[in-house]
Amino acid sequence: MTGTLHGVGVGPGDPELVTLKAARLISAASVIAYPAPDSGIGFARSIVADLIPETAVEIPMVVPMRPDRFAAESVYAEVAGILADHLRGGVDVVALCEGDPFFYGSFMYLHDRLAGRFPVVVVPGVSSLCAVTAASGRPFCARAEGVTVLPATLSEEDLEARLSAAEAAAVMKLGRHFPKARRVIDRLGMTGRATFVSHASLPNQRVAPLEEAPDEAPYFSMIVIPGRDAHA
Amino acid sequence: MTGTLHGVGVGPGDPELVTLKAARLISAASVIAYPAPDSGIGFARSIVADLIPETAVEIPMVVPMRPDRFAAESVYAEVAGILADHLRGGVDVVALCEGDPFFYGSFMYLHDRLAGRFPVVVVPGVSSLCAVTAASGRPFCARAEGVTVLPATLSEEDLEARLSAAEAAAVMKLGRHFPKARRVIDRLGMTGRATFVSHASLPNQRVAPLEEAPDEAPYFSMIVIPGRDAHA
Repeated sequence: MTGTLHGVGVGPGDPELVTLKAARLISAASVIAYPAPDSGIGFARSIVADLIPETAVEIPMVVPMRPDRFAAESVYAEVAGILADHLRGGVDVVALCEGDPFFYGSFMYLHDRLAGRFPVVVVPGVSSLCAVTAASGRPFCARAEGVTVLPATLSEEDLEARLSAAEAAAVMKLGRHFPKARRVIDRLGMTGRATFVSHASLPNQRVAPLEEAPDEAPYFSMIVIPGRDAHA
Repeated sequence: MTGTLHGVGVGPGDPELVTLKAARLISAASVIAYPAPDSGIGFARSIVADLIPETAVEIPMVVPMRPDRFAAESVYAEVAGILADHLRGGVDVVALCEGDPFFYGSFMYLHDRLAGRFPVVVVPGVSSLCAVTAASGRPFCARAEGVTVLPATLSEEDLEARLSAAEAAAVMKLGRHFPKARRVIDRLGMTGRATFVSHASLPNQRVAPLEEAPDEAPYFSMIVIPGRDAHA
Protein backbone atom coordinates (compact mmCIF):
# COMPACT_ATOMS: atom_id res chain seq x y z
CA MET A 1 0.00 0.00 0.00
CA THR A 2 1.46 3.33 -1.07
CA GLY A 3 0.63 6.55 0.73
CA THR A 4 -1.57 9.33 -0.63
CA LEU A 5 -0.31 12.78 -1.60
CA HIS A 6 -2.68 15.48 -0.36
CA GLY A 7 -2.40 18.88 -2.05
CA VAL A 8 -3.98 21.08 0.58
CA GLY A 9 -5.05 24.68 -0.02
CA VAL A 10 -4.64 26.73 3.15
CA GLY A 11 -6.45 29.85 1.92
CA PRO A 12 -5.35 33.45 1.51
CA GLY A 13 -3.69 34.11 4.85
CA ASP A 14 -6.19 34.35 7.73
CA PRO A 15 -5.69 31.11 9.72
CA GLU A 16 -9.47 30.97 10.16
CA LEU A 17 -9.96 30.74 6.38
CA VAL A 18 -8.55 27.22 6.43
CA THR A 19 -11.18 24.54 5.75
CA LEU A 20 -12.15 21.90 8.32
CA LYS A 21 -10.74 19.28 5.94
CA ALA A 22 -7.39 21.01 5.61
CA ALA A 23 -7.23 21.45 9.38
CA ARG A 24 -7.97 17.75 9.95
CA LEU A 25 -5.36 16.56 7.44
CA ILE A 26 -2.66 18.93 8.67
CA SER A 27 -3.30 18.09 12.33
CA ALA A 28 -2.85 14.39 11.59
CA ALA A 29 0.05 14.68 9.15
CA SER A 30 3.32 12.89 9.65
CA VAL A 31 5.05 14.43 6.59
CA ILE A 32 4.39 18.03 5.50
CA ALA A 33 5.98 19.84 2.55
CA TYR A 34 5.61 23.56 1.81
CA PRO A 35 7.20 26.32 -0.26
CA ALA A 36 9.68 28.40 1.72
CA PRO A 37 11.95 31.36 1.08
CA ASP A 38 15.72 31.30 1.55
CA SER A 39 15.25 32.33 5.14
CA GLY A 40 12.13 32.28 7.26
CA ILE A 41 9.35 29.74 7.36
CA GLY A 42 7.20 30.42 4.32
CA PHE A 43 3.75 31.91 4.00
CA ALA A 44 1.74 28.69 3.63
CA ARG A 45 3.32 27.17 6.73
CA SER A 46 2.79 30.34 8.74
CA ILE A 47 -0.96 30.21 8.05
CA VAL A 48 -1.34 26.77 9.64
CA ALA A 49 1.55 26.93 12.12
CA ASP A 50 -0.75 26.19 15.06
CA LEU A 51 -2.05 23.00 13.43
CA ILE A 52 1.22 21.26 12.56
CA PRO A 53 2.02 18.38 14.94
CA GLU A 54 5.37 18.63 16.72
CA THR A 55 6.20 15.14 15.53
CA ALA A 56 5.67 15.90 11.83
CA VAL A 57 8.60 15.64 9.43
CA GLU A 58 8.74 19.03 7.70
CA ILE A 59 10.10 19.41 4.19
CA PRO A 60 10.53 23.06 3.16
CA MET A 61 10.86 23.59 -0.59
CA VAL A 62 13.29 26.47 -0.92
CA VAL A 63 12.36 27.69 -4.38
CA PRO A 64 14.51 30.41 -5.94
CA MET A 65 12.57 33.46 -7.11
CA ARG A 66 12.01 34.03 -10.82
CA PRO A 67 13.47 34.25 -13.38
CA ASP A 68 15.56 31.21 -12.56
CA ARG A 69 13.01 28.62 -13.52
CA PHE A 70 15.61 25.95 -14.09
CA ALA A 71 16.81 26.12 -10.49
CA ALA A 72 13.20 25.94 -9.27
CA GLU A 73 12.62 22.81 -11.34
CA SER A 74 15.54 21.08 -9.71
CA VAL A 75 14.23 21.93 -6.24
CA TYR A 76 10.81 20.48 -7.10
CA ALA A 77 12.43 17.39 -8.58
CA GLU A 78 14.48 16.86 -5.44
CA VAL A 79 11.50 17.34 -3.10
CA ALA A 80 9.34 15.08 -5.28
CA GLY A 81 12.01 12.40 -4.85
CA ILE A 82 11.92 12.72 -1.07
CA LEU A 83 8.11 12.66 -1.01
CA ALA A 84 8.08 9.62 -3.32
CA ASP A 85 10.19 7.74 -0.76
CA HIS A 86 7.64 8.47 1.96
CA LEU A 87 4.71 7.59 -0.30
CA ARG A 88 6.34 4.35 -1.41
CA GLY A 89 6.78 3.45 2.26
CA GLY A 90 3.02 3.80 2.77
CA VAL A 91 3.14 7.20 4.46
CA ASP A 92 0.63 9.89 3.53
CA VAL A 93 2.08 13.28 2.65
CA VAL A 94 0.50 16.73 2.98
CA ALA A 95 1.75 19.44 0.61
CA LEU A 96 0.61 22.89 1.71
CA CYS A 97 -0.35 25.50 -0.83
CA GLU A 98 -1.34 29.14 -0.36
CA GLY A 99 -4.86 29.85 -1.56
CA ASP A 100 -6.13 27.04 -3.75
CA PRO A 101 -3.76 24.33 -5.06
CA PHE A 102 -4.83 24.48 -8.73
CA PHE A 103 -5.51 28.24 -8.99
CA TYR A 104 -2.04 29.56 -9.86
CA GLY A 105 -0.74 27.25 -7.13
CA SER A 106 2.76 25.88 -6.77
CA PHE A 107 1.28 22.45 -6.06
CA MET A 108 1.22 21.66 -9.76
CA TYR A 109 5.00 21.21 -9.71
CA LEU A 110 4.67 18.32 -7.26
CA HIS A 111 1.46 17.05 -8.84
CA ASP A 112 3.00 16.67 -12.27
CA ARG A 113 5.93 14.73 -10.85
CA LEU A 114 3.96 12.39 -8.56
CA ALA A 115 0.36 12.10 -9.81
CA GLY A 116 0.99 9.27 -12.23
CA ARG A 117 2.70 7.13 -9.60
CA PHE A 118 0.76 7.71 -6.39
CA PRO A 119 -2.84 8.49 -5.39
CA VAL A 120 -3.35 12.25 -5.19
CA VAL A 121 -6.18 14.10 -3.43
CA VAL A 122 -6.53 17.84 -3.91
CA VAL A 123 -8.28 19.77 -1.15
CA PRO A 124 -9.53 23.05 -2.60
CA GLY A 125 -9.03 26.22 -0.58
CA VAL A 126 -10.31 29.78 -0.46
CA SER A 127 -8.60 31.47 -3.42
CA SER A 128 -6.92 34.84 -3.29
CA LEU A 129 -9.58 36.03 -5.77
CA CYS A 130 -12.42 35.27 -3.36
CA ALA A 131 -10.53 36.80 -0.43
CA VAL A 132 -9.96 39.97 -2.43
CA THR A 133 -13.56 40.34 -3.57
CA ALA A 134 -14.74 39.74 0.02
CA ALA A 135 -12.36 42.46 1.22
CA SER A 136 -13.49 44.82 -1.54
CA GLY A 137 -16.97 44.90 -0.02
CA ARG A 138 -18.68 44.70 -3.41
CA PRO A 139 -20.31 41.76 -5.21
CA PHE A 140 -18.00 40.67 -8.04
CA CYS A 141 -20.04 38.83 -10.66
CA ALA A 142 -23.60 37.70 -11.21
CA ARG A 143 -26.05 36.02 -13.56
CA ALA A 144 -24.82 35.74 -17.18
CA GLU A 145 -21.58 37.68 -16.68
CA GLY A 146 -18.20 36.25 -17.49
CA VAL A 147 -15.18 36.54 -15.20
CA THR A 148 -11.71 37.36 -16.48
CA VAL A 149 -8.60 36.99 -14.33
CA LEU A 150 -5.40 38.41 -15.79
CA PRO A 151 -1.84 38.51 -14.48
CA ALA A 152 -0.41 42.03 -14.65
CA THR A 153 2.71 40.50 -16.16
CA LEU A 154 1.02 40.58 -19.61
CA SER A 155 2.15 43.22 -22.07
CA GLU A 156 0.36 46.57 -21.91
CA GLU A 157 -1.34 45.95 -25.28
CA ASP A 158 -2.45 42.45 -24.34
CA LEU A 159 -3.75 43.57 -20.96
CA GLU A 160 -5.72 46.37 -22.60
CA ALA A 161 -7.24 44.16 -25.30
CA ARG A 162 -8.33 41.52 -22.83
CA LEU A 163 -9.62 43.91 -20.16
CA SER A 164 -11.64 45.84 -22.73
CA ALA A 165 -13.50 42.62 -23.60
CA ALA A 166 -14.05 41.65 -19.95
CA GLU A 167 -17.09 41.95 -17.72
CA ALA A 168 -16.10 41.17 -14.12
CA ALA A 169 -12.30 41.32 -14.03
CA ALA A 170 -9.37 40.91 -11.67
CA VAL A 171 -5.75 41.83 -12.30
CA MET A 172 -3.32 39.82 -10.18
CA LYS A 173 0.40 39.71 -9.43
CA LEU A 174 0.74 43.49 -9.47
CA GLY A 175 4.10 44.27 -7.89
CA ARG A 176 6.22 46.24 -10.34
CA HIS A 177 3.51 45.90 -13.02
CA PHE A 178 1.09 48.06 -11.02
CA PRO A 179 1.66 51.34 -12.89
CA LYS A 180 1.05 49.57 -16.22
CA ALA A 181 -2.18 47.99 -14.98
CA ARG A 182 -3.36 51.37 -13.67
CA ARG A 183 -2.65 53.11 -16.98
CA VAL A 184 -4.61 50.47 -18.88
CA ILE A 185 -7.60 50.59 -16.52
CA ASP A 186 -7.56 54.37 -16.71
CA ARG A 187 -7.53 54.41 -20.51
CA LEU A 188 -10.47 51.99 -20.54
CA GLY A 189 -12.46 54.27 -18.23
CA MET A 190 -12.74 51.50 -15.61
CA THR A 191 -10.93 53.23 -12.73
CA GLY A 192 -14.15 54.33 -11.06
CA ARG A 193 -15.34 50.73 -10.78
CA ALA A 194 -11.97 49.36 -9.62
CA THR A 195 -10.84 48.50 -6.10
CA PHE A 196 -7.26 47.87 -4.98
CA VAL A 197 -6.69 45.21 -2.30
CA SER A 198 -3.39 44.09 -0.82
CA HIS A 199 -2.74 41.31 1.72
CA ALA A 200 -6.40 40.26 1.69
CA SER A 201 -7.59 38.69 4.96
CA LEU A 202 -4.34 39.47 6.80
CA PRO A 203 -3.92 42.02 9.62
CA ASN A 204 -2.15 44.39 7.19
CA GLN A 205 -4.94 44.13 4.60
CA ARG A 206 -5.40 47.35 2.66
CA VAL A 207 -8.50 48.22 0.61
CA ALA A 208 -8.90 51.41 -1.42
CA PRO A 209 -10.68 52.69 -4.51
CA LEU A 210 -8.09 52.38 -7.27
CA GLU A 211 -7.78 56.15 -7.63
CA GLU A 212 -6.75 56.38 -3.97
CA ALA A 213 -4.41 53.38 -4.01
CA PRO A 214 -0.77 53.80 -2.98
CA ASP A 215 1.86 54.25 -5.72
CA GLU A 216 3.48 50.92 -5.03
CA ALA A 217 1.80 47.54 -4.82
CA PRO A 218 3.19 44.35 -3.30
CA TYR A 219 3.11 41.09 -5.25
CA PHE A 220 0.23 39.91 -3.04
CA SER A 221 -2.19 42.53 -4.28
CA MET A 222 -4.96 42.68 -6.82
CA ILE A 223 -7.29 45.05 -8.61
CA VAL A 224 -10.93 43.96 -8.89
CA ILE A 225 -13.47 45.42 -11.28
CA PRO A 226 -16.96 44.08 -10.57
CA GLY A 227 -19.28 43.29 -13.44
CA ARG A 228 -22.20 45.59 -14.11
CA ASP A 229 -24.73 42.89 -13.24
CA ALA A 230 -23.28 42.37 -9.79
CA HIS A 231 -25.93 44.51 -8.17
CA ALA A 232 -29.39 43.51 -7.11
CA MET B 1 -25.18 49.38 18.66
CA THR B 2 -26.51 47.69 15.53
CA GLY B 3 -25.69 44.08 14.71
CA THR B 4 -23.38 42.93 11.92
CA LEU B 5 -24.53 41.09 8.81
CA HIS B 6 -22.17 38.21 8.00
CA GLY B 7 -22.30 36.88 4.44
CA VAL B 8 -20.81 33.44 4.94
CA GLY B 9 -19.64 31.20 2.11
CA VAL B 10 -20.17 27.54 3.02
CA GLY B 11 -18.25 26.07 0.10
CA PRO B 12 -19.25 23.73 -2.72
CA GLY B 13 -21.07 21.00 -0.79
CA ASP B 14 -18.72 18.82 1.27
CA PRO B 15 -19.37 19.85 4.91
CA GLU B 16 -15.62 19.58 5.51
CA LEU B 17 -14.95 22.30 2.93
CA VAL B 18 -16.43 24.88 5.29
CA THR B 19 -13.81 27.25 6.74
CA LEU B 20 -13.03 27.44 10.45
CA LYS B 21 -14.36 31.00 10.42
CA ALA B 22 -17.66 30.02 8.84
CA ALA B 23 -18.01 27.14 11.31
CA ARG B 24 -17.37 29.45 14.27
CA LEU B 25 -19.86 32.08 13.11
CA ILE B 26 -22.59 29.57 12.27
CA SER B 27 -22.15 27.67 15.55
CA ALA B 28 -22.61 30.90 17.50
CA ALA B 29 -25.38 32.41 15.38
CA SER B 30 -28.72 33.45 16.80
CA VAL B 31 -30.27 34.43 13.43
CA ILE B 32 -29.48 32.52 10.21
CA ALA B 33 -30.89 33.23 6.74
CA TYR B 34 -30.41 31.01 3.69
CA PRO B 35 -31.84 30.40 0.22
CA ALA B 36 -34.39 27.59 0.13
CA PRO B 37 -36.55 25.90 -2.47
CA ASP B 38 -40.34 25.71 -2.27
CA SER B 39 -40.04 22.51 -0.32
CA GLY B 40 -37.01 21.02 1.42
CA ILE B 41 -34.28 22.76 3.36
CA GLY B 42 -31.99 24.29 0.77
CA PHE B 43 -28.50 23.33 -0.30
CA ALA B 44 -26.53 25.91 1.72
CA ARG B 45 -28.31 24.95 4.94
CA SER B 46 -27.80 21.25 4.28
CA ILE B 47 -24.03 21.74 4.05
CA VAL B 48 -23.80 23.17 7.57
CA ALA B 49 -26.80 21.43 9.15
CA ASP B 50 -24.66 19.94 11.91
CA LEU B 51 -23.34 23.35 12.94
CA ILE B 52 -26.60 25.28 13.33
CA PRO B 53 -27.57 25.80 16.99
CA GLU B 54 -30.99 24.48 17.95
CA THR B 55 -31.82 27.86 19.43
CA ALA B 56 -31.11 29.82 16.22
CA VAL B 57 -33.92 31.69 14.50
CA GLU B 58 -33.92 30.38 10.92
CA ILE B 59 -35.09 32.51 8.02
CA PRO B 60 -35.41 30.54 4.78
CA MET B 61 -35.53 32.71 1.65
CA VAL B 62 -37.88 30.88 -0.68
CA VAL B 63 -36.78 32.34 -3.99
CA PRO B 64 -38.79 31.42 -7.09
CA MET B 65 -36.73 29.98 -9.92
CA ARG B 66 -36.04 32.08 -13.00
CA PRO B 67 -37.34 33.69 -15.11
CA ASP B 68 -39.51 35.41 -12.53
CA ARG B 69 -36.94 37.89 -11.34
CA PHE B 70 -39.56 40.30 -10.06
CA ALA B 71 -40.94 37.72 -7.60
CA ALA B 72 -37.40 36.95 -6.41
CA GLU B 73 -36.77 40.64 -5.78
CA SER B 74 -39.80 40.86 -3.55
CA VAL B 75 -38.63 37.85 -1.52
CA TYR B 76 -35.22 39.42 -0.99
CA ALA B 77 -36.82 42.73 -0.05
CA GLU B 78 -39.03 41.03 2.51
CA VAL B 79 -36.17 39.02 4.03
CA ALA B 80 -33.94 42.11 4.08
CA GLY B 81 -36.67 43.84 6.09
CA ILE B 82 -36.77 41.02 8.65
CA LEU B 83 -32.97 40.96 8.92
CA ALA B 84 -32.89 44.74 9.30
CA ASP B 85 -35.15 44.43 12.34
CA HIS B 86 -32.73 42.00 13.95
CA LEU B 87 -29.70 44.13 13.05
CA ARG B 88 -31.34 47.28 14.36
CA GLY B 89 -31.97 45.45 17.62
CA GLY B 90 -28.24 44.78 17.96
CA VAL B 91 -28.38 41.13 16.90
CA ASP B 92 -25.77 39.74 14.49
CA VAL B 93 -27.12 37.88 11.46
CA VAL B 94 -25.49 35.10 9.45
CA ALA B 95 -26.57 34.76 5.80
CA LEU B 96 -25.43 31.45 4.32
CA CYS B 97 -24.29 31.25 0.72
CA GLU B 98 -23.25 28.23 -1.34
CA GLY B 99 -19.67 28.47 -2.54
CA ASP B 100 -18.34 31.99 -2.16
CA PRO B 101 -20.69 34.91 -1.39
CA PHE B 102 -19.45 37.27 -4.13
CA PHE B 103 -18.67 34.67 -6.85
CA TYR B 104 -22.07 34.37 -8.54
CA GLY B 105 -23.54 34.24 -5.04
CA SER B 106 -27.09 35.07 -4.02
CA PHE B 107 -25.71 37.06 -1.09
CA MET B 108 -25.49 40.17 -3.27
CA TYR B 109 -29.26 40.54 -3.11
CA LEU B 110 -29.11 40.98 0.66
CA HIS B 111 -25.86 42.91 0.53
CA ASP B 112 -27.22 45.56 -1.81
CA ARG B 113 -30.24 46.09 0.41
CA LEU B 114 -28.45 46.21 3.77
CA ALA B 115 -24.80 47.19 3.25
CA GLY B 116 -25.34 50.91 3.36
CA ARG B 117 -27.24 50.74 6.65
CA PHE B 118 -25.45 48.09 8.71
CA PRO B 119 -21.90 46.77 9.09
CA VAL B 120 -21.32 43.86 6.70
CA VAL B 121 -18.55 41.26 6.87
CA VAL B 122 -18.10 38.83 4.00
CA VAL B 123 -16.45 35.50 4.80
CA PRO B 124 -15.08 34.06 1.55
CA GLY B 125 -15.62 30.38 0.86
CA VAL B 126 -14.28 27.66 -1.41
CA SER B 127 -15.81 28.47 -4.81
CA SER B 128 -17.42 25.92 -7.10
CA LEU B 129 -14.62 26.70 -9.57
CA CYS B 130 -11.91 25.56 -7.15
CA ALA B 131 -13.93 22.48 -6.15
CA VAL B 132 -14.32 21.54 -9.80
CA THR B 133 -10.67 21.97 -10.69
CA ALA B 134 -9.68 19.94 -7.61
CA ALA B 135 -12.05 17.17 -8.70
CA SER B 136 -10.74 17.30 -12.27
CA GLY B 137 -7.35 16.14 -11.05
CA ARG B 138 -5.48 18.55 -13.30
CA PRO B 139 -3.83 21.92 -12.52
CA PHE B 140 -6.01 24.68 -13.96
CA CYS B 141 -3.88 27.77 -14.54
CA ALA B 142 -0.33 28.89 -14.01
CA ARG B 143 2.19 31.67 -14.45
CA ALA B 144 1.15 34.37 -16.97
CA GLU B 145 -2.07 32.66 -18.09
CA GLY B 146 -5.43 34.34 -17.88
CA VAL B 147 -8.55 32.63 -16.55
CA THR B 148 -11.94 32.96 -18.21
CA VAL B 149 -15.16 31.83 -16.54
CA LEU B 150 -18.25 31.84 -18.74
CA PRO B 151 -21.87 30.95 -18.03
CA ALA B 152 -23.22 28.52 -20.62
CA THR B 153 -26.29 30.75 -20.83
CA LEU B 154 -24.42 32.99 -23.31
CA SER B 155 -25.39 32.74 -26.99
CA GLU B 156 -23.52 30.16 -29.05
CA GLU B 157 -21.68 32.87 -31.01
CA ASP B 158 -20.70 34.77 -27.89
CA LEU B 159 -19.53 31.63 -26.11
CA GLU B 160 -17.42 30.65 -29.12
CA ALA B 161 -15.83 34.07 -29.51
CA ARG B 162 -14.91 34.30 -25.86
CA LEU B 163 -13.71 30.72 -25.47
CA SER B 164 -11.53 31.01 -28.55
CA ALA B 165 -9.70 33.92 -26.91
CA ALA B 166 -9.34 32.13 -23.55
CA GLU B 167 -6.40 30.33 -21.98
CA ALA B 168 -7.59 28.47 -18.87
CA ALA B 169 -11.39 28.38 -19.08
CA ALA B 170 -14.43 27.13 -17.23
CA VAL B 171 -18.01 26.96 -18.50
CA MET B 172 -20.58 27.03 -15.70
CA LYS B 173 -24.34 26.68 -15.26
CA LEU B 174 -24.58 23.95 -17.87
CA GLY B 175 -28.03 22.37 -17.41
CA ARG B 176 -29.98 22.63 -20.66
CA HIS B 177 -27.14 24.64 -22.26
CA PHE B 178 -24.78 21.67 -22.13
CA PRO B 179 -25.19 20.54 -25.79
CA LYS B 180 -24.44 24.09 -26.98
CA ALA B 181 -21.31 24.34 -24.82
CA ARG B 182 -20.13 20.96 -26.10
CA ARG B 183 -20.63 21.95 -29.74
CA VAL B 184 -18.63 25.14 -29.24
CA ILE B 185 -15.78 23.39 -27.44
CA ASP B 186 -15.72 20.74 -30.17
CA ARG B 187 -15.56 23.31 -32.97
CA LEU B 188 -12.67 25.02 -31.20
CA GLY B 189 -10.76 21.76 -30.94
CA MET B 190 -10.68 21.99 -27.15
CA THR B 191 -12.57 18.81 -26.30
CA GLY B 192 -9.43 16.78 -25.68
CA ARG B 193 -8.32 19.21 -22.95
CA ALA B 194 -11.77 19.49 -21.35
CA THR B 195 -13.10 17.75 -18.24
CA PHE B 196 -16.74 17.52 -17.17
CA VAL B 197 -17.50 17.67 -13.43
CA SER B 198 -20.90 17.54 -11.75
CA HIS B 199 -21.72 17.86 -8.03
CA ALA B 200 -18.09 18.58 -7.16
CA SER B 201 -17.08 17.49 -3.64
CA LEU B 202 -20.42 15.72 -3.00
CA PRO B 203 -20.91 11.95 -2.68
CA ASN B 204 -22.52 11.89 -6.15
CA GLN B 205 -19.61 13.78 -7.74
CA ARG B 206 -18.98 12.75 -11.32
CA VAL B 207 -15.77 13.45 -13.26
CA ALA B 208 -15.21 12.49 -16.89
CA PRO B 209 -13.25 13.60 -19.93
CA LEU B 210 -15.71 15.76 -21.87
CA GLU B 211 -15.92 13.25 -24.70
CA GLU B 212 -17.13 10.61 -22.23
CA ALA B 213 -19.53 12.88 -20.35
CA PRO B 214 -23.21 11.94 -20.08
CA ASP B 215 -25.68 13.53 -22.51
CA GLU B 216 -27.40 15.53 -19.83
CA ALA B 217 -25.81 17.83 -17.30
CA PRO B 218 -27.33 19.17 -14.08
CA TYR B 219 -27.22 22.88 -13.29
CA PHE B 220 -24.48 22.19 -10.74
CA SER B 221 -21.95 21.05 -13.28
CA MET B 222 -19.05 22.63 -15.10
CA ILE B 223 -16.58 22.05 -17.91
CA VAL B 224 -12.97 22.98 -17.19
CA ILE B 225 -10.29 23.48 -19.80
CA PRO B 226 -6.86 23.92 -18.20
CA GLY B 227 -4.41 26.39 -19.64
CA ARG B 228 -1.41 25.10 -21.54
CA ASP B 229 1.02 26.47 -18.95
CA ALA B 230 -0.60 24.52 -16.15
CA HIS B 231 1.99 21.79 -16.26
CA ALA B 232 5.37 21.73 -14.65
